[in-house]
Amino acid sequence: MPNDLVAALDIGGTKIAGALVDSGGGLLARTQRPTPAQESAERLAATVDEVLGELTATPHWYRVGAVGIGSAGPVDTKAGTVSPVNIPAWRAHPLVSAVRDRAGGLPVALIGDGPAIAAAEHWQGAAKGHSDALCMVVSTGVGGGLILGGALHSGPTGNAGHIGHISVDMDGALCPCGSYGCVETVASGTNIARRALEAGWRPGPDQDATAAGVAAAARAGDPPARAAFERAARALAAAIAATAALVEVEIAVVGGGVARAGEVLFTPLRTELKRYATLPYIQGLALAPAATGTDAGLIGAGAAGWKLLETGTV
Amino acid sequence: MPNDLVAALDIGGTKIAGALVDSGGGLLARTQRPTPAQESAERLAATVDEVLGELTATPHWYRVGAVGIGSAGPVDTKAGTVSPVNIPAWRAHPLVSAVRDRAGGLPVALIGDGPAIAAAEHWQGAAKGHSDALCMVVSTGVGGGLILGGALHSGPTGNAGHIGHISVDMDGALCPCGSYGCVETVASGTNIARRALEAGWRPGPDQDATAAGVAAAARAGDPPARAAFERAARALAAAIAATAALVEVEIAVVGGGVARAGEVLFTPLRTELKRYATLPYIQGLALAPAATGTDAGLIGAGAAGWKLLETGTV
Repeated sequence: MPNDLVAALDIGGTKIAGALVDSGGGLLARTQRPTPAQESAERLAATVDEVLGELTATPHWYRVGAVGIGSAGPVDTKAGTVSPVNIPAWRAHPLVSAVRDRAGGLPVALIGDGPAIAAAEHWQGAAKGHSDALCMVVSTGVGGGLILGGALHSGPTGNAGHIGHISVDMDGALCPCGSYGCVETVASGTNIARRALEAGWRPGPDQDATAAGVAAAARAGDPPARAAFERAARALAAAIAATAALVEVEIAVVGGGVARAGEVLFTPLRTELKRYATLPYIQGLALAPAATGTDAGLIGAGAAGWKLLETGTV
Repeated sequence: MPNDLVAALDIGGTKIAGALVDSGGGLLARTQRPTPAQESAERLAATVDEVLGELTATPHWYRVGAVGIGSAGPVDTKAGTVSPVNIPAWRAHPLVSAVRDRAGGLPVALIGDGPAIAAAEHWQGAAKGHSDALCMVVSTGVGGGLILGGALHSGPTGNAGHIGHISVDMDGALCPCGSYGCVETVASGTNIARRALEAGWRPGPDQDATAAGVAAAARAGDPPARAAFERAARALAAAIAATAALVEVEIAVVGGGVARAGEVLFTPLRTELKRYATLPYIQGLALAPAATGTDAGLIGAGAAGWKLLETGTV
């Protein structure tokens, strides 16, 4: 076996994707299925098997030396299980052993989807060349991952970097996670749209009541729409500055659907970062949009697979 | 040279302490001077020389293989300089080269005082045996350090773990650091006393208007005093939970003058931690009082010296 490819799986609430990943991050045999998120554990497992089956059926499979999985969290890399919030039938589901069996006993690395994005951005994207970075996804939810000392820091259970659920407003709104004033309660796409609607923004006839609709309105100067993005920017800035103060990162990379609003988000985010990132050792913190796009999850899972193959650990 | 001792320096706003530290963490030839914090850079440097001179004059000095320094921050371990907030004459002061010269060219490790406390608690105290820990000092200010993956994570500039200056109330009070709603604006001893006074607490004839006085009143049931500690506990809990969500720690160790209030702080802190540490992978977070006492800074500086001696890096 030449061990010059790894297999990657990206397990999310909307899709289950797979690919073979070469040592340069190139994807072969990319495939995906819709996630049967509300169906049984068996149906879910069968979907993973279908995706993996497509990979094992390629003529390249004999070259594969390891499998990397990035999964919606929480995950438990010690136990090899996943319990994704938005896939209710999987609670402590033994994904690692199932994938290992289906992949002929290859070694399997599991990390959360936030760490996977960070691994992807560090390998191929905006965090490349940076030894210490925070990479975030701001979308329906808010997640993230950390690169520390030149390597992914996914933590003992694989969930580290979960910036969406740190409190930046300790007296704030109850979060679905059970805590209060989490970044996600302010900065997720859902909450940006909710806040804009509450402040009087109304989607136009050709607009949806989504963060993308709010972004379009903000771009046209609508005050409630702009205020909703400014509020999100403040929460993100406070959280990014907190992360930098805690672990020292030199760059914060922001991706996801909300980040695609571009300067509607990034202009107030830069302004707010100056207000919160005041300690001398974090004032130079850089900010950049994510660069790896929709295959980031697969690329990050591939990075985890490669690390396992090359070092024996994740 | 047997290399079976390191020299340790603890540079703070009130005292400059030194000792020789053996491989078991035992201190020899411990000495200290008051810090001439408001005097000239030369006077400060002379005080460091006096402390170091006492160490080099001991019959044990030939056994010393490295020097570890824990200093009030911010520090810059890359540049080898310190700029302690409360020692105004030292800005980018080249402490490492000065100490190296005075110590006959021995290798010198520099870390911030928060990371030093964490190193001490991990080596000798309540974080011993834990691979991932947050260690905090809650006193006139609030600081901290992180143990990640079994080793001190002091970050590229040596300041990581600075939990006192993460915002838990993004619309909160302006902090002297320039940011808003930092943990320190609520949970420092100074701010606990201020809040209690504002709420109507008055020190008794035999009490000072300090956090220790507030703690005594809280223990006797005084409502404004109890409320001030509960508020501090909430800010600390939100910050501890944020840190655990970001980097995954299994224990939070809390020391410093305010922590000496004991259950007046720890009882509400445990209650508040349950409210904020809700993610499945952080619900099991343990909480413990610090165990290394007043020599923690020296022990942690010694740990940094030992790590440099044994691994060539900090």
